[in-house]
Amino acid sequence: MSTNLRIDGERLLSRLAALSRIGATPEGGCRRLALTDEDKQGRDWLVGELKALGLDVRVDAIGNIVGILKGQEDGPAVIMGSHIDTVGTGGRFDGALGVIGGVEVLAALRDAGVTPKRDMAVIAFTNEEGARFHPDMLGSYVWAGGMSVEAAHAEKDSDGAGLGSELKRIGYHGAEQPGFLPAHAYLELHIEQGPVLESEGGGLGAVTGIQAICWLELTLTGRPSHAGTTPMRYRKDPGLAAARINIFANELTKTIPGQLANSGVIRTWPGNVNVVPETVVMTLDLRNPLDAPLAEAEAAVRKFCAELSARDDISISFRDLARFPATPFAEELIASVEASAAEFGLPIRRMISGAGHDAQMMSRLCPTAMVFIPSIGGLSHNPAELSSDDDMVAGANVLLSAAWRAANA
Amino acid sequence: MSTNLRIDGERLLSRLAALSRIGATPEGGCRRLALTDEDKQGRDWLVGELKALGLDVRVDAIGNIVGILKGQEDGPAVIMGSHIDTVGTGGRFDGALGVIGGVEVLAALRDAGVTPKRDMAVIAFTNEEGARFHPDMLGSYVWAGGMSVEAAHAEKDSDGAGLGSELKRIGYHGAEQPGFLPAHAYLELHIEQGPVLESEGGGLGAVTGIQAICWLELTLTGRPSHAGTTPMRYRKDPGLAAARINIFANELTKTIPGQLANSGVIRTWPGNVNVVPETVVMTLDLRNPLDAPLAEAEAAVRKFCAELSARDDISISFRDLARFPATPFAEELIASVEASAAEFGLPIRRMISGAGHDAQMMSRLCPTAMVFIPSIGGLSHNPAELSSDDDMVAGANVLLSAAWRAANA
Repeated sequence: MSTNLRIDGERLLSRLAALSRIGATPEGGCRRLALTDEDKQGRDWLVGELKALGLDVRVDAIGNIVGILKGQEDGPAVIMGSHIDTVGTGGRFDGALGVIGGVEVLAALRDAGVTPKRDMAVIAFTNEEGARFHPDMLGSYVWAGGMSVEAAHAEKDSDGAGLGSELKRIGYHGAEQPGFLPAHAYLELHIEQGPVLESEGGGLGAVTGIQAICWLELTLTGRPSHAGTTPMRYRKDPGLAAARINIFANELTKTIPGQLANSGVIRTWPGNVNVVPETVVMTLDLRNPLDAPLAEAEAAVRKFCAELSARDDISISFRDLARFPATPFAEELIASVEASAAEFGLPIRRMISGAGHDAQMMSRLCPTAMVFIPSIGGLSHNPAELSSDDDMVAGANVLLSAAWRAANA
Repeated sequence: MSTNLRIDGERLLSRLAALSRIGATPEGGCRRLALTDEDKQGRDWLVGELKALGLDVRVDAIGNIVGILKGQEDGPAVIMGSHIDTVGTGGRFDGALGVIGGVEVLAALRDAGVTPKRDMAVIAFTNEEGARFHPDMLGSYVWAGGMSVEAAHAEKDSDGAGLGSELKRIGYHGAEQPGFLPAHAYLELHIEQGPVLESEGGGLGAVTGIQAICWLELTLTGRPSHAGTTPMRYRKDPGLAAARINIFANELTKTIPGQLANSGVIRTWPGNVNVVPETVVMTLDLRNPLDAPLAEAEAAVRKFCAELSARDDISISFRDLARFPATPFAEELIASVEASAAEFGLPIRRMISGAGHDAQMMSRLCPTAMVFIPSIGGLSHNPAELSSDDDMVAGANVLLSAAWRAANA
């Protein structure tokens, strides 16, 4: 870019450190569950930073905080953003990096005394983690029109506290309608939360989309029997069937490109050493960057289960826990992220996002892309979550360049 | 037998019905946990029956109830027995049949006016089930000298009540030393508690022994990771390892004669659909009629786990939960049981006992054998536990004949 815009790296790291002190845990992580007192402190701090930059700060009816930098022309804005809520045992960078990265982009423009053609904005979305209120990505979901404000306000946490009343309690039930700011493009900087970038030599990630998800809960029922008096041929063991399904789903990942599979929950009932289980509950988390191969994987699992059920006389019932199609990002923005990295001489590779992000919801509204930076040890949702200072600054510079490009194209 | 001794079938069934009313449950089963008020009522009823038969009734310091019929000569007795305690959701026949069968054998001798050469006795052993106090088969274990009276008295139930004080509370802390009656032979009539006899055409079982047991608890530890962001090649999934071990142990039962395997407990931690498990706890219940093949099976499992651990970088630790060698019964008594069945024209087959019984402990002291009758549906430890009236009478007649033979040999 001819402007030679640069992020102030020291200030970026200093702002990340300041936010990380709010809700800091003894283990070195952060606990800022959505709409708690800690979240309010984080929000208040953020609003103060946005106002100090002279931005137009708005809060919508779902608590999304928006800081707007007016451009030279009217029209849809280039939006950056992420979230500042965390899971219960969260780290310092999941979400925070994307919000503060956006703040620093706008601060860099102020410092350089330049004004973009289009409006630019940074948004901190409410309740991305879903750790306190369902669903996750709630603020961006409402912003994108996927859920009404009323339905979102009616959500309750596990103690029965309502989202709407908690918004009011902490003073973040704002006047704006979610989605009030039309979007020209959306860009989100985020830690990878996985081991790929680090394990493959470092560098940044140009995220091509969010993979499709299918979460299933299987209940397998056989016949409980005495493990000493019942010959093997008379048993109907759902634990053995669960083992075969787990292995089958894992084998599928070797033949279906991009396929992931995990059985995170496996539990037997009655759960006695000398009783052949009557019932097993297990979950399957199936993901794929593309919808068709994910559907193929799910169909293969269901066919395998049907055959197993018939052969071993085990009843197997399925319950959908979640199901989201793949979210491909916009090619022109992905290419712009790559070009921005190249400008800074930074290595970058295209990759899929394994986890969901607010960008998933924003892509309903406008061309969207994301920038990933390496997570050390692949850790996230963990107090030890960490990325290098250099990578954080590099990621923010790529965000700056790509956002500036979009705001002036 | 020249005496043409016969069990009074009506009276056997009537006595079984009388005992089953004590601690009867709405589901049709029995709940007489050891040394509870219900057990006391059952004991009081039994002592009354034994006294009414004119037997010499004794109670030992562990609460075993002994009814002795004096023979023509002094010397060790032919002992029959089992237990009248039940599990929490017990049936009507597990244990009760063996005790009342023994009572009816002695009653039949009284009716016929015959006196055996040797003393004969029936014993109701304390706390066979192990449902209230550990270990199971406690009364016969103490009787056989495997555990001291003091150690047994010190056992506590899950509410902290001591076995010794409970014995005193219900009035069954008797004066005799356990084992006071020397044993010439021990015979026990019992329901099979499994499906073999019924599934293979009915008839009785001449039990050749109690199989060897090895109970293991395995703790498998991998690395927790995000099921969306972590490529398959970076995962260390102990759930998948547990699945392979379960299947391997089950496959072993096809190649090692007589081998049984069960994984009754399988549980993952942290147990989230989208987290690759960090830890899995699973149990293995391995049994075999013979010690050597059981040792072979355990060694094969441990070797498989060691290889799996090295290949997949999963740590696997083992904890012994229980370990008992095989208990072979006495050939001459097994043959006598078969001959007794033949006398009555009853079909009988040799078989191993899958579960533990008081006979296991008594075989430390004297030649021992057991008679099994079919369990309908293979059910036991279940209110629906049932055997046919004909089978119960047939089993008691075989007990009578074999005991009489042993008492006069």
